[in-house]
Amino acid sequence: MKPALPAIDPAREAGAAVPPGPLDFYFDFISPYGYFALAQIEAVAARHQRVLRWRPFHMRAVTREVLGMTQAMGDVPLKGPYVRQDVRRTARWLGLPYAPAPTAGFSSVVASRFLCVVQDKHPQSAAAFARAVFHSHHALGRSPNTWDDCQGLAAQIGVPLDALNEAACAEPGRELFRAATAAAVAQGVWGTPTFVVDGEMFWGSDRIAQVDAWLEQGGW
Amino acid sequence: MKPALPAIDPAREAGAAVPPGPLDFYFDFISPYGYFALAQIEAVAARHQRVLRWRPFHMRAVTREVLGMTQAMGDVPLKGPYVRQDVRRTARWLGLPYAPAPTAGFSSVVASRFLCVVQDKHPQSAAAFARAVFHSHHALGRSPNTWDDCQGLAAQIGVPLDALNEAACAEPGRELFRAATAAAVAQGVWGTPTFVVDGEMFWGSDRIAQVDAWLEQGGW
Repeated sequence: MKPALPAIDPAREAGAAVPPGPLDFYFDFISPYGYFALAQIEAVAARHQRVLRWRPFHMRAVTREVLGMTQAMGDVPLKGPYVRQDVRRTARWLGLPYAPAPTAGFSSVVASRFLCVVQDKHPQSAAAFARAVFHSHHALGRSPNTWDDCQGLAAQIGVPLDALNEAACAEPGRELFRAATAAAVAQGVWGTPTFVVDGEMFWGSDRIAQVDAWLEQGGW
Repeated sequence: MKPALPAIDPAREAGAAVPPGPLDFYFDFISPYGYFALAQIEAVAARHQRVLRWRPFHMRAVTREVLGMTQAMGDVPLKGPYVRQDVRRTARWLGLPYAPAPTAGFSSVVASRFLCVVQDKHPQSAAAFARAVFHSHHALGRSPNTWDDCQGLAAQIGVPLDALNEAACAEPGRELFRAATAAAVAQGVWGTPTFVVDGEMFWGSDRIAQVDAWLEQGGW
């Protein structure tokens, strides 16, 4: 009996170059560890010629509705104070500017909806807008909570504002962000930042070395 | 006006060598990340001539009574399955043997009490006994749940069993372990593994590179 033949990939058989899959970066703007991941994961994607996809999701909704946790991490005894110390030490360790506005004063929801609209209407500006939001909150001590705040950031990076007016875009942004959060949960994402590449999921900025090695070695 | 003089350390002034402080390793045997930390943190302590102190504590008691979390991490939707995948991938990444017994079938309490008694009566054997428990559960698929199981492990590393009989030692072990858990909480420890050196606390096996650098640089 002949052994079964391995499955044939028609594109590869025909000699066509099969583009490698994207590197998905799931995040909530509120997370300092997402901010720490930013520069590193862009470099990893570039090194391995992977397209980085920016995938915002609503962390607090997932924490409450999927994980069943009602307590904000910052309010957990012992863990909250430790995390506040860890993020400052890790920022210094990474050599990153870190001067966040108070977490309690920032809701990432509007900025996330705004990003979804930018991705929809001006996809080439999405990365720059996402970087601008992270930098604004975590390095400049601001809290871009309103549509106007987000328009201000978009203007700084040259996105045409007429396509981003609140009356026309806020509701579609709400729907896009809701769908983005549902897609994250469907993928199994439960924390921020999370990376998915070639079907493999990694949670945490401290797993980026593994993501890099996974792409280098094709898994292990 | 003369500037204030720096504080003088009398021991240093007298030319005496001031021994550097210990590196405290807080853990619960049940944690695979504690097992992953084991070999690495011993090497870090040795490299910087720090005495490694083995500090068992009861993680589940802390999680419930201090952190206020009633759900076991393994039962958290999405997070539980992710962690099970992450520990297997990380074990392969570190090149460590990893074949644990089911977590639900292992209570680390008796082994922790036994370790406290060994630390009290045969301190020179404490490291070997702690390594043996970690290895037994996480690499050999066993669950040393009883005093007899622990005596078996102690015998393998040559600890005289007559000093470790259950009738005389179980109750002191209970008290020592209770005090050890209280001491961990008093230090601010809330997760496993945690490392404390020179008053600085680090949580997680993925912070060992920071512990190493902290000792190398004297902080940053």
